[in-house]
Amino acid sequence: MYQIIDGKNVANQIKQEIADEVADIKKKGGKIPHLVAILVGTDGASETYVSHKEKACERVGFRSTIVRMKESVTENELLDKIAEFNHDDDIDGMIVQLPLPDHISEHKVIETINPKKDVDGFHPVNIGRMVIGFPSYVSATPAGIVELLKRYKIEISGKSCVVIGRSNIVGTPLSILLSRKTSYGNATVTLCHSRTPNITELSSKADIIIVAMGKARFLTADMVKEGAVVIDVGTTRIKSDKTKSGWKLVGDVAFDEVAPKCSYITPVPGGVGPMTIVSLLKNTLKASRKEKN
Amino acid sequence: MYQIIDGKNVANQIKQEIADEVADIKKKGGKIPHLVAILVGTDGASETYVSHKEKACERVGFRSTIVRMKESVTENELLDKIAEFNHDDDIDGMIVQLPLPDHISEHKVIETINPKKDVDGFHPVNIGRMVIGFPSYVSATPAGIVELLKRYKIEISGKSCVVIGRSNIVGTPLSILLSRKTSYGNATVTLCHSRTPNITELSSKADIIIVAMGKARFLTADMVKEGAVVIDVGTTRIKSDKTKSGWKLVGDVAFDEVAPKCSYITPVPGGVGPMTIVSLLKNTLKASRKEKN
Repeated sequence: MYQIIDGKNVANQIKQEIADEVADIKKKGGKIPHLVAILVGTDGASETYVSHKEKACERVGFRSTIVRMKESVTENELLDKIAEFNHDDDIDGMIVQLPLPDHISEHKVIETINPKKDVDGFHPVNIGRMVIGFPSYVSATPAGIVELLKRYKIEISGKSCVVIGRSNIVGTPLSILLSRKTSYGNATVTLCHSRTPNITELSSKADIIIVAMGKARFLTADMVKEGAVVIDVGTTRIKSDKTKSGWKLVGDVAFDEVAPKCSYITPVPGGVGPMTIVSLLKNTLKASRKEKN
Repeated sequence: MYQIIDGKNVANQIKQEIADEVADIKKKGGKIPHLVAILVGTDGASETYVSHKEKACERVGFRSTIVRMKESVTENELLDKIAEFNHDDDIDGMIVQLPLPDHISEHKVIETINPKKDVDGFHPVNIGRMVIGFPSYVSATPAGIVELLKRYKIEISGKSCVVIGRSNIVGTPLSILLSRKTSYGNATVTLCHSRTPNITELSSKADIIIVAMGKARFLTADMVKEGAVVIDVGTTRIKSDKTKSGWKLVGDVAFDEVAPKCSYITPVPGGVGPMTIVSLLKNTLKASRKEKN
């Protein structure tokens, strides 16, 4: 019988741990962690993400500020604002919600954020430090997945792991994290992507499969061996006549047919998703203590 | 019949190309590239490496300076020297020969070098930029291997590639480079290491095998499929009664038994080794033009 990896539950536990730490900081008269989110324009999905982050901050006792800038803001105005926050000791962590309008270079924005406040872990210096095992802020989704595996005491050392999808913020950093020589690493990782001709051959031999492609129900039962651990990072909104909204979220895994073959599997929603914001909170707490991950 | 990948020959070709470019720069009255190598102490191997780099600079027409510091130099003195060179417009590229004495933090040294002069590509910002596909200086050995494969027109897109060894300066960055979505990337890479239990199973299915473990003759014929491309990064000095010096260099590949199964294979010496210095020269030329890779 497979076990569901309950990301929502783990995320709630960790939020409580963070809230306890914040209460302790408050009691000792220390600095309350402060996260600033910059939101450019009025994209619906971005609004939702930022408001989730704000609520999570509230829940654990952080201060949070949302800075709204018009869609028409110039690149220089945005970069100036980031520079201002870089120098503001009151601000511990800073995120710029992506995507940005086409006239603004994400590249420049990411590299302008002070790496010490880059709690999203997107700055090249944080990625590079992670690669070579220096202290760093690890980006939220990969860090959340590692935390989930750890909390469920899933052994990864010496295991074969197939990561499907090579995005800069999930698949690629995750493939590195899992293979590093660290106390929680040492997996043998194969990074698959759109140009991999034999994904089924590879995934069907893996002890751990992590799918982060954004293709609804991509991973089917024939691609998974008995007893595998399956982590689903995908979220695709599809029409549904069974929900009030008329929509439902599905992952990259055909859950109903894959789950019976697994030892552990994450659901969508309620698996990896809730862990992402928790990683952001953890990074912000560390930033406020001037620690690196 | 297998084909030898002649790294020495390719390296000579590229040195000639660089020398032609330098001659052109000179003719136009432009700035001659200038590489500075800092050498701490008097380690024999380090002396040899640095003097090879100096000779290579001479050969292509670069200026090169070796700055020697005593074994007893303090960390701060070394960092101050690096900071001085960071601000010296006359210096385009800077390397600090590793390893350093135990009382000096390699970590701090690497992060003190201005990333724009970090022609070794060891600074986290250069590694991170490489990971996410921003322009960067790629470290010498991985860049040299990619260049070798390119010059021999070996297709890597869609191929399965096993990298054995996960060092920060070879295996790990190379695994990322080969799998990226770029004009010369798109391989499906499995990164194997000391904790991989089934290297033979994995390597014997790979189209391309890159061995960078530092274990003499580790890769044997049973670990290689017919027609594979084998790249040998290892160099171990072993006793020999057939050479004048009483020593010879062997790679991580049991060449005599593996070569007959290969389509292409690099020898040791004369394979990957000569390419490493060439990558350093290429990075220095780019740095002098204020370009990134």
